[in-house]
Amino acid sequence: MDRVFIYDTTLRDGTQGEGISLSVEDKVKIAARLDQLGVAYIEGGWPGSNPKDMEFFQRAQQMTWKHAKIAAFGSTCRPGIEACDDTNLRALIESGAPVVTIFGKSWDFHVTAALRTTLEENLRLVHDSITFLKNQGREVIFDAEHFYDGYKGNPEYAKEVVMTAEKAGADWIVLCDTNGGTLPHDILSITQEMVFTLRAPVGVHVHNDGDLAVANSIMGVMAGARQVQGTMNGYGERCGNVNLCSLIPNLQLKMKMECLPEGKLQTLTDTAHFVGEIANMPLRNEMPFVGHSAFAHKGGIHVSALMKDPGTYEHIQPETVGNHRRVLVSELSGMSNVVYKAKELGLDVNRQNADTKQIIEQIKNLEHQGFQFEGAEASFEVLLRRAFGEDPVPFVLDSIRLIIEKRSDADFTSEAMIKLRVGDQVVHTAAEGNGPVNAVDNALRKALVSHYPFLAECHLTDYKVRVLDGKDATEAKVRVLIETRDSHDAWGTVGVSTNIIEASWQALMDSFLYGYMRERARVQMESSQPA
Amino acid sequence: MDRVFIYDTTLRDGTQGEGISLSVEDKVKIAARLDQLGVAYIEGGWPGSNPKDMEFFQRAQQMTWKHAKIAAFGSTCRPGIEACDDTNLRALIESGAPVVTIFGKSWDFHVTAALRTTLEENLRLVHDSITFLKNQGREVIFDAEHFYDGYKGNPEYAKEVVMTAEKAGADWIVLCDTNGGTLPHDILSITQEMVFTLRAPVGVHVHNDGDLAVANSIMGVMAGARQVQGTMNGYGERCGNVNLCSLIPNLQLKMKMECLPEGKLQTLTDTAHFVGEIANMPLRNEMPFVGHSAFAHKGGIHVSALMKDPGTYEHIQPETVGNHRRVLVSELSGMSNVVYKAKELGLDVNRQNADTKQIIEQIKNLEHQGFQFEGAEASFEVLLRRAFGEDPVPFVLDSIRLIIEKRSDADFTSEAMIKLRVGDQVVHTAAEGNGPVNAVDNALRKALVSHYPFLAECHLTDYKVRVLDGKDATEAKVRVLIETRDSHDAWGTVGVSTNIIEASWQALMDSFLYGYMRERARVQMESSQPA
Repeated sequence: MDRVFIYDTTLRDGTQGEGISLSVEDKVKIAARLDQLGVAYIEGGWPGSNPKDMEFFQRAQQMTWKHAKIAAFGSTCRPGIEACDDTNLRALIESGAPVVTIFGKSWDFHVTAALRTTLEENLRLVHDSITFLKNQGREVIFDAEHFYDGYKGNPEYAKEVVMTAEKAGADWIVLCDTNGGTLPHDILSITQEMVFTLRAPVGVHVHNDGDLAVANSIMGVMAGARQVQGTMNGYGERCGNVNLCSLIPNLQLKMKMECLPEGKLQTLTDTAHFVGEIANMPLRNEMPFVGHSAFAHKGGIHVSALMKDPGTYEHIQPETVGNHRRVLVSELSGMSNVVYKAKELGLDVNRQNADTKQIIEQIKNLEHQGFQFEGAEASFEVLLRRAFGEDPVPFVLDSIRLIIEKRSDADFTSEAMIKLRVGDQVVHTAAEGNGPVNAVDNALRKALVSHYPFLAECHLTDYKVRVLDGKDATEAKVRVLIETRDSHDAWGTVGVSTNIIEASWQALMDSFLYGYMRERARVQMESSQPA
Repeated sequence: MDRVFIYDTTLRDGTQGEGISLSVEDKVKIAARLDQLGVAYIEGGWPGSNPKDMEFFQRAQQMTWKHAKIAAFGSTCRPGIEACDDTNLRALIESGAPVVTIFGKSWDFHVTAALRTTLEENLRLVHDSITFLKNQGREVIFDAEHFYDGYKGNPEYAKEVVMTAEKAGADWIVLCDTNGGTLPHDILSITQEMVFTLRAPVGVHVHNDGDLAVANSIMGVMAGARQVQGTMNGYGERCGNVNLCSLIPNLQLKMKMECLPEGKLQTLTDTAHFVGEIANMPLRNEMPFVGHSAFAHKGGIHVSALMKDPGTYEHIQPETVGNHRRVLVSELSGMSNVVYKAKELGLDVNRQNADTKQIIEQIKNLEHQGFQFEGAEASFEVLLRRAFGEDPVPFVLDSIRLIIEKRSDADFTSEAMIKLRVGDQVVHTAAEGNGPVNAVDNALRKALVSHYPFLAECHLTDYKVRVLDGKDATEAKVRVLIETRDSHDAWGTVGVSTNIIEASWQALMDSFLYGYMRERARVQMESSQPA
C-alpha cells in the first residue's frame, strides 16, 4: 500500500480563516490530538511573524511526539538580503522545529507584481534560503506558491523555480494552488508533468475557492504526489484549505493509500469535533464523513431500503471513520437511549413503564428549551436519578446576593453573599471572585465544604457559554456548560436561562448534586462491606 | 459556446436535507427567484408523495415562467402494476408540469434487495412508465438511480436499463451517483462510455458524500453530459446534492459553458443568500464564490499583494458572481491591513509613520490578550480613530453597581445603578434587566438617551460569549462580541476580561462610542453644507 504523508496546517493556514483565533494553549491541545490521530507533519505556525507562534514552538520542544514531526513555516529570504542575515529564516531555526517549510514565488507575475524583484533574484532567494536551512540540518519542504497559476502563465519559469529548489536540496517540493481556482484535470496534468521532471518527492497544497479542493488533492495523488497539505475541517483563508477530514477517508478507503497508522481512521470523527470545539467552530452537520448528518437518513424510501441493507444508501460504513448512522424522525431511538442510560445507572427501568415515557417527555421539553445533554451527562444522571425517586436535599437555599461594582476607571469587582441551611444549621457567608460566577462558586463552596468535605477536591475545569438565539441579544437565552473534576473523575453539567447567572447556578447545582450523590453511594457501598 | 442545462432540485431533493422544511409559499418564492436567475428546469416536488407538493404545482400553473420549465418528480411504476394504473404516475400527469422526471433502478443489487423484484420486471417498469408519460405529451427525464454503483457492479445490466429508457423515448438520460461516493475519474470514464453509447442527451446528478460533488459534475460535463441536476447552496440528503452556486461559476467562467442567460451570473450571490434566508439556513461564510468570506483576505502578505493587484490572490473577480472583496484585521495581517482600513476611514496614514507601527504593536498586544477584531470592526475603528488623535469624552463614569439576587427558589433578579457626568451634569439612575448585562445596557441607555438621542434608535442584536482558556473555568478570560443595529447600519464591538461584566461593558462602551463618533461626523457634515 502506497503511503501518502499527511501534512496538517490547521495551526497556521487554518488560522487564516475568518473567525478563527487560537491561543497557544489551544494550539498545544490540537497538536497533541493530531499526533494521536497519526498525521505525519504538524505545521505549528510562523515563528517569525508573532510571539504567540514562537511560544508554541517552545512548548512543542518539551512535548513527546509519537507520529508527527513538527514543522515551522516561513518564507524565502527577502530580496537583496543574504539568507544568513534574514531574521525570518533565523526565527525558523530558532524555533527548534526539525522540519522547516518555506514558501517561494513560482509565478512570474507574482515575482514582479507582488515581491517586486527580478526573476533571477527570486531564483537566488529560493536557492540560498534552502541551502541555508539544509546547512542547519533541517528537513526542508519547499512550498511553490501559486505553482499552477504560474505554470499556466510561464511554465518554463515555474519549472525553473522548483528545479532550483530541488538542486538546493529541498526534501519535498510542494505544488500550491494558492488561489484555489484550478480545475481538477489541470491539477492532474501539471502535477504529472512535475512528478516526471523532479526526482524529489512531490506534494500538493490546494485551496477550496472552486469547491474542488478534495478532488484536486486526489488528482495530485493520482499524478504521483505523496504529500498532501491541508487542515482539519477545511479551515483556512477565504474558502479554506483542503479538508483533511474528507480527503483522508477518500484516499485511505477508496484509493487504498496509507494515510494514518492502523486503527486511527476510526478516531477521525472525534478528532474533527474536538478541533471544532477548541476552535469554537462547531462542525457543519452536512460535512462529509464526520458531520452529524453525514449518515442521517430522512427520505422514506431511503430509510426503508436501509433497513433491508445499509449498503443501499451509504457509500461507506459510518463506523470506519468513527461516525454512526442516524435515522431522522425516530422517537424510538429517544426511548432506547433513555432506557439504555437508566440501565447503565442500575435504575429499575421497564420499557412499558409509564415513568419512562414521562421522563422522555421531560427531556424533550428541556431540549426544546435549549438544554443539551451531550457533554452534560452528569446533569442527565441527576435528572434520571430524581425521576426514579432519589431526591437528595443536601441543603436549602435561603438567598444569594451578588454585588458587582465599578468605580470610575477601575475594573469591576464581584462579591457574593449566600445564606442557606444544612439540616437545622444556618450558614451565612460571603466571598469575592474574578467575575460573578466565580464569586458565586467560591461562596457556595465556602458555605458547604465543612459539611461536605468532598467539595475540597472538586474544582471547575471548564466553563462554556453559548447564546442560543442571537436575535434578542443580551435578553437572549444562554446555555452554560460546566466541567468539574476531582482526582478520579470529570463530569459535565448544564444550565439554561435568559440570565447567565441563573444558568450558571443551575449548572453549579447539578455539579454539586452529582458529586454529592456519587459520594453518598460510595459511603453506602463502604458501610455495607464486611469490616 | 456549449450550453449546459441547469436542473435545480432545491425544492425536492434539497428538502431532504436535515433541518430543511419549506412551506408552499416558500417554494413559490424560491422558484420565482430561480426563474429570474435563469436555470433551465425547476423540480417542484413529488406530487404523488404529499399534498403540499401537489399544491405547489397548482400554484405553478398560474405563474409565468421566463426561463425555466417546471418539472414534477416521481418513480417508475410499481412492480406488478400497469403504468396506466399507477397512482404515482397519474399524479405526475395531474400535476400539470410540462416536464416529468422519474427515477428507476439501474443497480441490480437495488432491484433485488430494495425493490424486491426481478431484473426483467424492472426493465418493464422503466419502459412502460416512460412510454406512458411520453404518450401524455410530456418531456421525460429518466434519472438512473445509483447508475455509477450499478455500472461498477454489473455494467451490462446498468447499460440495458438506460438503453431501455432511451428506446421508450426518454428525452434525457440522467446518470445518478445517489450515494455520493464515486471518485471523479470513475465519473469521467463511465459517463464518457455512456455518452458514446446513447443517442439521447445525457445528464448527471451527484451527491456530496465524498466532498467531490462539484468535481464529479464537472467530470460529467467534460465527458459530454449537457444537463446537471443540483441544489442551491448544496442542500440535500446526508451531505447534500452538488451545490449549483459552486458548479455554475466553474462551468461558465472557467470552462466557458453557457449555464445562465447573459448578465445573470452577477445575481448568483444574492440568489444564494435569498434561498438561504427562506430556508432559514444562513450561508456558511466560507462557501466558495457566494460566501461572505469567499473573497475575504486575512494574511498580511496576501493583503499587501492585493493592494498591488487583486489578481495575485483571487481566482476570479468577486463581482462576476455578485460578491465583493473584504480585508480582515488580525494579528496575521501586519501593516497592510491596518493601512488599508485606515485609508478606508479617511485617516491620514503613512506607511513610514511611526504612529502606524505603534498602532500595530497595540493591536498585536490586544490580540495576544484575546481581543479579536474580525466581526468587531467598530471596536477597531474606535481604536484607530483614537490612535489618530480623535478622543471624544461624551461622558465620565463615576460608578456602576449591579445587584443580582435570588431568594430561595425564585429566579435571579438583576438591577443596575449607574452614576456618571455629561459635561457638568450628574446623572444617577437605575434599571432592571433580564440578566446582568441587559440591566447594565438598560441603565446606560437610560442615563444617556436624553443627551444622545441617537441611542433611542440603536439596539443590541447579537451577544456572543467565548471563554478563551478553559483551564481556569470561571476564573478564565472571556471575550464578548456585541452587534448593534440602527435603521441604516450594523456594527460589531468586542471586550475581553476575566469578568464577563467587564468584558461586556467594554463592548457596550465601544458600541456607544462608535455610534457617537458616527453621529458627530454626520452632524459636522451637515453643518458644513451650504444651506
